[in-house]
Amino acid sequence: MLRAAVPSDLETRATDDHHDALRVWLRLLATSNMIESRVRTRLQERFGMTLPRFDLLAQLERVPTGLRMNELSARMMVTGGNVTGITDALEREGLVVREADPADRRAWRVRLTSAGRRSFRSMADEHEKWIVQMFAGLPSRDIAQLNELLGRVKTHLRTSNEDEA
Amino acid sequence: MLRAAVPSDLETRATDDHHDALRVWLRLLATSNMIESRVRTRLQERFGMTLPRFDLLAQLERVPTGLRMNELSARMMVTGGNVTGITDALEREGLVVREADPADRRAWRVRLTSAGRRSFRSMADEHEKWIVQMFAGLPSRDIAQLNELLGRVKTHLRTSNEDEA
Repeated sequence: MLRAAVPSDLETRATDDHHDALRVWLRLLATSNMIESRVRTRLQERFGMTLPRFDLLAQLERVPTGLRMNELSARMMVTGGNVTGITDALEREGLVVREADPADRRAWRVRLTSAGRRSFRSMADEHEKWIVQMFAGLPSRDIAQLNELLGRVKTHLRTSNEDEA
Repeated sequence: MLRAAVPSDLETRATDDHHDALRVWLRLLATSNMIESRVRTRLQERFGMTLPRFDLLAQLERVPTGLRMNELSARMMVTGGNVTGITDALEREGLVVREADPADRRAWRVRLTSAGRRSFRSMADEHEKWIVQMFAGLPSRDIAQLNELLGRVKTHLRTSNEDEA
């Protein structure tokens, strides 16, 4: 309210910038939620698979030698799953296996089994098609620009976090 | 693998577009997660408040007459909270109140109390400062462009969903 009484250009500009920052965060969250919710529904319908389980398999697929539980937790992209519980369930289904870490005999690593790798690949192929379909119709230039800008924001957030730490 | 054996321009272009769509989704998710996780930590440290509770108060603040539970659930921006449980907790703290819906005597509406409104406003002011700080240092033009592009993606996702339904 008080701000409206001080309509200097600098003030207006600062208020606009504030609104833009807040708006970009709410749009990021809303857009991300919309896609996440569709992916969740389709994974469930098509494969009876939860998003946190799919995410865990995705993280393991990138590292053939496997990951320790703490590394795995740190890499997860979605919240809402207990990593130990998810690993237990996937191990019972034969998709992942726990093994002693060759570098540290007291520690355990989790890795994909061959069946896990095959199962993940077929789900990941469909998942990619869903995402491609969701963005289909938007100009390639918009997508490329969005990738570029999000890349800058990510780098900026990482750097500013190091400053605070 | 087979794709590499068919290096027509169309094929290459399609593969690039696929990669861009997948990349933009993963960047959206990662960026959104980075901000969300910082907001979560700070809400907890500064106010002992969880993000789902803050989100619920934010949704109620926009509608002074209050919302029914199902409307409230539909508007929540973050996952990981049971709306009934959160409402119970906030009601015990005197921040929200349940009232009979004047339009439907069998239904209940939830709205902010005066204390809830004051409490939310002071948290929301700090929340806005955190977000502004996170984006500070990025060119205003980048932020404005990102807002524009995310707006287009949101609209596109909404429309494409209607096509499917």
